[in-house]
Amino acid sequence: MEIIEKLEWRYAAKAMNGKKVPAEKIDRILEAARLAPSAFGLQPFEIISVSNPDLLAQLLPVAYNQNQVKGCSHLLVFAAWDNYTPERIEAFIEHVAKERNVTVESLASYRQALLNSFDPAKSEINFIHAAKQAYIGLGVTIVAAATEDVDGSPMEGFDTAGMDALLGLRERGLRSAVILALGYRDADNDRFANLKKVRADRARFVTHLN
Amino acid sequence: MEIIEKLEWRYAAKAMNGKKVPAEKIDRILEAARLAPSAFGLQPFEIISVSNPDLLAQLLPVAYNQNQVKGCSHLLVFAAWDNYTPERIEAFIEHVAKERNVTVESLASYRQALLNSFDPAKSEINFIHAAKQAYIGLGVTIVAAATEDVDGSPMEGFDTAGMDALLGLRERGLRSAVILALGYRDADNDRFANLKKVRADRARFVTHLN
Repeated sequence: MEIIEKLEWRYAAKAMNGKKVPAEKIDRILEAARLAPSAFGLQPFEIISVSNPDLLAQLLPVAYNQNQVKGCSHLLVFAAWDNYTPERIEAFIEHVAKERNVTVESLASYRQALLNSFDPAKSEINFIHAAKQAYIGLGVTIVAAATEDVDGSPMEGFDTAGMDALLGLRERGLRSAVILALGYRDADNDRFANLKKVRADRARFVTHLN
Repeated sequence: MEIIEKLEWRYAAKAMNGKKVPAEKIDRILEAARLAPSAFGLQPFEIISVSNPDLLAQLLPVAYNQNQVKGCSHLLVFAAWDNYTPERIEAFIEHVAKERNVTVESLASYRQALLNSFDPAKSEINFIHAAKQAYIGLGVTIVAAATEDVDGSPMEGFDTAGMDALLGLRERGLRSAVILALGYRDADNDRFANLKKVRADRARFVTHLN
C-alpha cells in the first residue's frame, strides 16, 4: 500500500525551506480533509489556510516561534465549533435536504437525534467533541499531504487564545484546536530529518482477539 | 490523488455482508495506524482488533446493536491511555533510546518536556488528550482501509464502560475512545449505500488567507 511508504517517509519537520506548495496540491489536500468522516456527518470544524507572509509572521509568536512556522508554505488552522447549537443543527439538516433533494420533514428523526445528542448548555463537552472530529480530519489531511510528497508538521503547542484573537475565530463561533504546517523539509537544518522514526512495537500497539 | 477517489467511494456502511477482510489487508491497515503521528510521538493508545465471532456477538449489545457490528469482519477498538504517568513516559523514553541507539541521558530534555507537559493528577484532561491522538490514528486508519477497498464505519455511540469491562481495558490503564467496524458493505440492505455523500461546501469549510 503506497500510503505506508508515504507515512514512513513523512515526519514532523522542524525546519521547512520556504518553498511554496503548488495550489493544485493544496487544493487536493483540502479536498481530502473535506471528505473526512465526522460524527453524524456534521463536520463541526473549519480550516483556515494561511499563506499570507505578513499573517504568517504575526502567527509565529502565537505558535511559540516554532521554526517550521517560519519556513512553511501554508499553515492550516483546524478551528472547531465552540458549541453545538440548534441553529447549527438546523442549518446542517437544511444542507443535507438540499444536497439529497429531499424535504426537511423527511429528515425529522435524523434532526431529532442530533438535537437530542448535543445539549448546548454543555459547551465545553461539545467543543471537545467537535475538536475530536477535527483530529480525524487532521489524520486524513496528513496522509493526503504525504501522498502529495508534502511535509506536514502538526502542532498542539501554541497560544490558542492568541490564535483565536488574531484570526477572529471566537466571533465566528470557532476555537482553534490544532494546527498543521505544510511545506517542504529543510533536511540540512533539521536534526530530526535523519533520525530513525520511532513507533511502538506492533505487540504493544495491537492486540488481536481472533 | 487516488485517496480522494477512495474517500468519495467510502461511507459509514450501516450494513456489512459478513465477508472476511484478508489478513494481509488488515495487517497493512494496522501498520498505517501504527505509523500515524501523535503528540511527542507518544502514541498514547492501543488498538484491540476483534474478529472472534463469539466476542463480536458479545460486543453487539455494548455497541447498541448497531447492524454493522453484526456483519463486520473486524472491529477495531481504539483504547486510549487513561492517564499520562511518569512510568509511561520513562518507558517511552527508554524505547526511543533503544530504537535510536542513544543513551537515555541524551534524551533528558525530551524526557523533562514530557514530564512537564502532563500532570498525572489531571487524568481526565490527559485521557481527552490521549483520545484525540487516537482520533488522528482513526483518520489515518479510515484512509488506509479505503485504499484497500475495505469499508470502515466509525462509531462513537457505544457503552464505553461496557466495552472497557468486556475487554478488560481499565485493568490495563486504557479506556475505549472510539470504534471502527471494518468489512464490506451490504449495499442491498443498506439504505445509506446509494445516498449522495453530503459534505460542507468548500466555502463553508475552508477560508483562504493568501
